[in-house]
This record gives sequence, C-alpha cells and structure tokens, in this order.
Amino acid sequence: MIEDKNPQRTPLSELGEFKLIEHLTENFKVTQKSTIKGIGDDAAVLSFGKKQIVVSTDLLIEGVHFDLSYVPLKHLGYKAMVVNLSDIYAMNAKATQVTISIAVSNRFPLEALEELYAGIATAAQLYNVDVIGGDTTSSTSGLVISVTAIGEVNEGEAVLRSGAKPNDLLVVTGDIGGAYMGLQILEREKEVFKVNPQSQPDLSMYTYIIERQLKPEARKDIIELLQQIDVKPTSMIDISDGLSSEVIHLCKQSKVGVDIFENKIPLDPQVIFTCEEFNIDSTTIALNGGEDYELLMTVSQEDFPKIKGNPNLTVIGYMTDEDRGMHLVTRSDEKIPIIAKGWNALKD
Amino acid sequence: MIEDKNPQRTPLSELGEFKLIEHLTENFKVTQKSTIKGIGDDAAVLSFGKKQIVVSTDLLIEGVHFDLSYVPLKHLGYKAMVVNLSDIYAMNAKATQVTISIAVSNRFPLEALEELYAGIATAAQLYNVDVIGGDTTSSTSGLVISVTAIGEVNEGEAVLRSGAKPNDLLVVTGDIGGAYMGLQILEREKEVFKVNPQSQPDLSMYTYIIERQLKPEARKDIIELLQQIDVKPTSMIDISDGLSSEVIHLCKQSKVGVDIFENKIPLDPQVIFTCEEFNIDSTTIALNGGEDYELLMTVSQEDFPKIKGNPNLTVIGYMTDEDRGMHLVTRSDEKIPIIAKGWNALKD
Repeated sequence: MIEDKNPQRTPLSELGEFKLIEHLTENFKVTQKSTIKGIGDDAAVLSFGKKQIVVSTDLLIEGVHFDLSYVPLKHLGYKAMVVNLSDIYAMNAKATQVTISIAVSNRFPLEALEELYAGIATAAQLYNVDVIGGDTTSSTSGLVISVTAIGEVNEGEAVLRSGAKPNDLLVVTGDIGGAYMGLQILEREKEVFKVNPQSQPDLSMYTYIIERQLKPEARKDIIELLQQIDVKPTSMIDISDGLSSEVIHLCKQSKVGVDIFENKIPLDPQVIFTCEEFNIDSTTIALNGGEDYELLMTVSQEDFPKIKGNPNLTVIGYMTDEDRGMHLVTRSDEKIPIIAKGWNALKD
Repeated sequence: MIEDKNPQRTPLSELGEFKLIEHLTENFKVTQKSTIKGIGDDAAVLSFGKKQIVVSTDLLIEGVHFDLSYVPLKHLGYKAMVVNLSDIYAMNAKATQVTISIAVSNRFPLEALEELYAGIATAAQLYNVDVIGGDTTSSTSGLVISVTAIGEVNEGEAVLRSGAKPNDLLVVTGDIGGAYMGLQILEREKEVFKVNPQSQPDLSMYTYIIERQLKPEARKDIIELLQQIDVKPTSMIDISDGLSSEVIHLCKQSKVGVDIFENKIPLDPQVIFTCEEFNIDSTTIALNGGEDYELLMTVSQEDFPKIKGNPNLTVIGYMTDEDRGMHLVTRSDEKIPIIAKGWNALKD
C-alpha cells in the first residue's frame, strides 16, 4: 500500500458506530430529485413517477476480490462503486442511488476508512449517483464491502440478456483483457517486493493496464451514446467475468448461438506486449480475463449504419441459430467451441 | 448446531458459482406485480407506477452478528431477512423485494447453504417479498450475509424519524428485552456445553425468549393494523439496538425530548424471571438489550382513542420540548437521563 508519511491513527472505538457513520457520510450530497430521504433513517425513500427501478448488489471480500497489499483503499472504494454501476448500465439504465455496507476489523484506523470513503465519494460525484444508506459494522477478520445500486429506466427501455436474435451483431465497447494483465503485473511486483523491499520498479509502460485493474470505469458514456444514436441493443451484459463467460450468458438466455472472430477482438497494445512478455495467448486473456467492465451487446443488423465506424463500438461477431453452437473463428479460420472459463477459474 | 443425522456433504467446488446460484434460488417465486425481471440478469427491474420505493441494507458477519455454534443456519437466513424487512416496516412501507448476497468459506457444504436459503425462502414467503437478486462469493474466513430490502409506500405515507412533536405519545409494539435475554441463555448453555458436551439442558421455560433471539419476526402486522385503524405515526423506528438508543434517534432527529415511564415498559414474564435468575435489572435490559425488532413510534394525542386498549400497542411515555431532555421516570418517580447504550455496547 502507498506509504503514509503522517500516520495518524484514530481508533474506531473512539467514535462509536453512529458517530463513525455520521463522520464518514457527512460529505455525501443528495443531488437526485428522486431522492426524497437519504442517509439517516431506517431506509431511504425514493420517488420515480412513471420510471422503472433497477437494483444491483455486490459483495467484495478481502483476500478474494482484492489484495490490500497493492490496492490503495481509495481505489478500492472507487472500484466497488464502478462494479455495481456497471451492472446498472448493462440494463441500459441510468444509475441514480447506491447503498454501501462495510465491515472492518480494528486493524483499520479511521484514516483508512476515510480513504475508502473518499474513493466512494469520488465515484458518486463522477457518476452522479446519491449514496442513500448502508451499514457499517465490525469484522473479525478482513474487510468486506457490499454495494447495492439502483437505477431508473423508461418503461420498455431496459435491455435484458435474453433479447438477442440470430443475425444480430455482437458488439463490445472499448478494449478487453487489460484489467487481467494489469493484475498479473501487480502480482509479479508484489512477489518482487517480497524478495527485495527496496526495489523501485518502473511500471510506466504498464500504466494503462494497471489503471484498468485498479481504477476501472463503468460505461455510463455508452448508455448516453446509445440514446444519442438511437440504438436500443437487443441484449446486453457487462464484462465482469470475461468475454467467453458473458457471451455464453447472452446465448443461453437468448437461445441463440454465436460466431466470434478472433481478429476482431479489440486489444490495447499494452495487453498485446504484456501477453508476449508473460508468454500467454492474448486471445485467451481477452476471452477469459475479467474485470474490464466493458459492455457486450447485440445489435440488430438494421442498426449497423448507426454504429459503424464509432471508435467506442467494435463488431466482433454475430449471433446464429442456437443449434449452430457458440464458436470462436480463429485467424486461421478454424472454429473452436467457446467454453466458460471466467475470472474465478483463472485465479485458481 | 443441530445434529445432522444424514451428513451428506457436497463440496461447493463441484457446482461452480453459476450453478450454485441457480441451485440455491430455483425455489424463489416471483409474486409481486412490480417485479418485471428478477434473478438472472445484471440487475432487477421493478415498476411501481406512482408508488415510492424504499430500500434498506444490512451486512451480517459471523462472529459479530451471529455465532454458528448455537444458531441453526435456517434460523440465520430467516433472521437476516427479518432484520431488513423490519427497517422497511419502520418506514410505514410495504416490503416488496430483497436482494441477498452471501460469502462463504469452503468449510460450508452445499447442504449448509441450502439450510440458510431455506430460511430465506420461508421468510420471503411469509412476508410476501420477492428475492430479486444477489451475489454469492467465497470468503477467506467466516460467513457474511448482506441483505437489501425494497418496499413501496404511497406518496406522503412514509414515516420518518424526524416527525415527532412535543406531547405526542410514545408507543411501543409487543414486548421488549426478550431477544437479549434469549441470547444470555444461549451463551450460558454454550459454556455449559463446552464443559460437558453430554449435557441435555431443559430450556422449555425459556422457549419464548430463545425464539425472540433465534427467530424474531418483523412487525408487518402493525403496518397493516395502523392502516386499518387509520393512524399515521408522526415518527417511527424499529428497535434493533435497544429502546434507549432508538428513542434518542427519534428525539434528536425530531428535536424533542421524552419522558418514558418505567412501569409502562412491556416485559414478558420470561424476561422478568430470567433477569432475576441472572441478577440483572429488567429495565436496564429493556432499555439497552437489542434485536427485538419491535416498532417504536410517536402518535398524535388525538389518535389516542384509536390505539387505546389495543394489545399490540403500549403507550410508554410522551414527547416533550427539546430543552426538557430525555428521561426515564422510575417507579419511585425519579427522573434519570436516558443514555445511548445499544446492543453493541452491551456486548463489550
């Protein structure tokens, strides 16, 4: 973790639970018209008129989802928000509120929690969502973070995983595989640090992929873009576990097959040269590395002119009849079945 | 924990995350008209027309909120639901949906999780709420449960903590102190069991208070009752931390004082005799013992005829001007200041 030059430590016990919550949440501002009552009651009250509501929740556990030896707490707070907001955007919805629950052991001083909440507040401001409640409690061991996000969407505008049709185009936003390769760099540096704590590694050539791992962004901009160009995807999902795992979700729930073209998968140059450095196949990483939080969607062929040439959207394949199965078409024109092998499997 | 006569153990690793979720949630039925899309997408989609939404969330950590050595998992699942639904009812709202996230270590076999989810399903059915999503992940140490509940309420009907006025009556539902004394019995029996695992204690005289601890109920019935008798409380809160802690919340947020009459506090006979057995003052337990999940509300004096004589509602005091302070009026007519000393403090 980043060195603290002024290691002031206020024990949490000095504050008590209510004061702690008050202290940690005093900077959260309510900005949504739909937030009638935020933090400070048994529950939050929201009003959306004729809007629909979307809710998503995630639980992040130390040692499972993050390693505090290289994840700064501020980044962790930010990422916990992004992970959830990404799920809301994957519904074609506008994220509006979140609740945050945190369990911490006594080894965390107040300042550490402040860092964590600073990251949460930064994300709340950037994504324009209200933090409307939560729970803060103690933990006997590691840090636990639970986030629930709520969003709104006009009736009939929510995009599910189940709407893809044969011949729809498969479209991915941004580029993928970066977050996973960033994690490989961080884990390698952690091992180096264990052997030689004095080492000052030059990570400047990996900046992009490390940021993809430590400070990912949710694609709020894509939801706004889709509205501008008047495209409603037929199905959509966010890429948290990896492209193969997510496309299988779309296929199974939509009862379709898919052909993905290996040479179309968008990769950043840093992903390509880091894969070479680690002697891993970059397509494997694109398919199975997780945590990119890009969006994977299917779009009707007739919408192709609207998305064509947009630098944010890459067509990587198309949907087929279900009995055609799910395949990757390689550069050498071979067809390989797509198997689920998400982020968790890779970690084993 | 209750002995398992047929200890079949299916390792969680056999299923994988998606199959596990599918398996655990297959018995959840969607019953709410407002549930457009439940489990199975990135997020749930709800629609409430002109209704308002309420959301509440809680995080339960093994070793902090529960001790698996005497809490059966089914009861734990049930209680995790009740704790959250209670927050929704405390808003004068109707609970409609919940999300449940769980982190477990490998020491839990599938059957243990099934027990946990059976308790969740039982509560979902009894309280008529839909389980609309969640997250299941692994934990490096203990069991973690995070629940977010959502409810609906007509515009203008939500009851906050901040609406109490001087001269309003302070009303509590049911009786209090039972859950805390039930915990004392369970902890004593745990110690006895450590010394002599063969002991078969007779706990029949403590049935009510043990049930209050292990299987509390949320007061959905009270929200329905208030509607029937046409009473809208001026403020309301659920008693999770203890009467004194909750009444302080009402006073501070409403900017009023309070006089509570010791001889009016409703106690079950089992609480009284168990307090005698443990040589503890029962009023102290009523004020500071937590987890009863009764409702504490303030009601305008003009509504008194509507609540008078109702066995579910006990008037225990009245609100005063803020500068009069917060006091307990003892049986000997002394005035003692009320101090926050919630459930957590008692545990120290």
